[in-house]
Amino acid sequence: MSEWYQKPIEGVLLDITGVLKDGGPTGTISIEGSVEAVKRLKACAGLQVRFCTNETTITRKQLLAELTGFGFDVQESEIFSPIPAVCQILQNRGLRPHLLVANACMPDFADVDQTNPNCVVIADAESNFSYENLNKAFQLLMSLEKPVLFSLGKGKYYKHGTELVLDAGPFMKGLEYACDITAEVVGKPDKAFFNAVMQDMGLSPDQCVMVGDDIVGDVGGAQGAGMRGVQVRTGKYRSKDDSHPTVQADGRVDNLAQAVDYILTNRT
Amino acid sequence: MSEWYQKPIEGVLLDITGVLKDGGPTGTISIEGSVEAVKRLKACAGLQVRFCTNETTITRKQLLAELTGFGFDVQESEIFSPIPAVCQILQNRGLRPHLLVANACMPDFADVDQTNPNCVVIADAESNFSYENLNKAFQLLMSLEKPVLFSLGKGKYYKHGTELVLDAGPFMKGLEYACDITAEVVGKPDKAFFNAVMQDMGLSPDQCVMVGDDIVGDVGGAQGAGMRGVQVRTGKYRSKDDSHPTVQADGRVDNLAQAVDYILTNRT
Repeated sequence: MSEWYQKPIEGVLLDITGVLKDGGPTGTISIEGSVEAVKRLKACAGLQVRFCTNETTITRKQLLAELTGFGFDVQESEIFSPIPAVCQILQNRGLRPHLLVANACMPDFADVDQTNPNCVVIADAESNFSYENLNKAFQLLMSLEKPVLFSLGKGKYYKHGTELVLDAGPFMKGLEYACDITAEVVGKPDKAFFNAVMQDMGLSPDQCVMVGDDIVGDVGGAQGAGMRGVQVRTGKYRSKDDSHPTVQADGRVDNLAQAVDYILTNRT
Repeated sequence: MSEWYQKPIEGVLLDITGVLKDGGPTGTISIEGSVEAVKRLKACAGLQVRFCTNETTITRKQLLAELTGFGFDVQESEIFSPIPAVCQILQNRGLRPHLLVANACMPDFADVDQTNPNCVVIADAESNFSYENLNKAFQLLMSLEKPVLFSLGKGKYYKHGTELVLDAGPFMKGLEYACDITAEVVGKPDKAFFNAVMQDMGLSPDQCVMVGDDIVGDVGGAQGAGMRGVQVRTGKYRSKDDSHPTVQADGRVDNLAQAVDYILTNRT
């Protein structure tokens, strides 16, 4: 099998947390070499770059400010995240959500009618995942004739500071089990999410590669949409991922800088 | 098919919460007719009665005191619950638990070595199911080479006061998903738990019937151990249970009193 970077690449999808930035002992830091790596990618004629994140603990504007603060060359229009996607779905289907999300991302739902809710939206709610709040979401779902649960991503865990902490996925699984339902996932690894990004670039899956630290959400999700999926050994990467029972990465790199080295080498 | 009570019954296993007692608007109450029903069962020569509960939010002694306070004829030796069962397993296997359980049941773990934990035990922890506490259990599991998770029951929900609230099962599912592991369930519906009760009575499955309000934990569990499983329409019963996708009760009764009517009618 030829290496992942030896087939033409016209579009690069980058995960944000664990690839561009990471948790450090005293707060978020940019991952060494990644600011420069994004610059090199964007300077390459004919190569398109998009940022694909399941980040829901801050608003889109805060995320953009954080990234540009680190020196990343990122435009708001290049960031794809699940909140705008779910807001569109809610509007299309006439649904009014009960939100179980982080306080900090609430402004991104400001335009959504939340009165008399007829569905539940969960995201990485952090400490809002209390027993009381989970019961409220559960009780609402049980009261609906056709319970609808949206989960913004279904990640198992992520690195917060220096610790691994639970992501939205485990709570989605708990509510699915409690209510005998299947959640609708919005964001990675859902195929529709990756398709929207490719559509925005006007590219087909065989022209694209996704670079991320999550073996299931990033790598498996990208592969499910027909793209190549490359895993970085930063962020939440664990050596166990190399022998994951269902997902085999198309490639593994130490970090984003090395991924970009490979991509650009092949274009010269 | 003959009715469930028309084959000889020598042993009756009774669930406690939702069958003997229930949540009321101002606290726990005994379910109408159930004190008398237990008396009638125990007065019947040759019939053995055991109480099988996944209750872990109070100690065994507190549970006994509550039941005798309502007037139930119950001995401590007749109550089977998951905490003594898991304590025995921990001792046999040299395991030291990190406990994610309700504060009120902690005294029942007083004799268990909890230093330098090498496994996790979860039960219905109620408000102790905080994001912080779930992360602690998750992080310990992730740090173990061979993560071991015990779940005391895997109930989806139960009635607390007048509301349905989440039981241990959804949190078990969440941790299973987060850590890619399968929990060991101790208590209903685990077959070993029902077998221990039958062994105590010296009876075989075809001589026994379980009466409970949980279609999966009580009825499905009993059937899995070869017994008959009868569902009461008290406690957490919902009409949806009648068309449960995987479990069909051998019989349904309005309440324990009616179940006992059937059992005793067939013995005269």
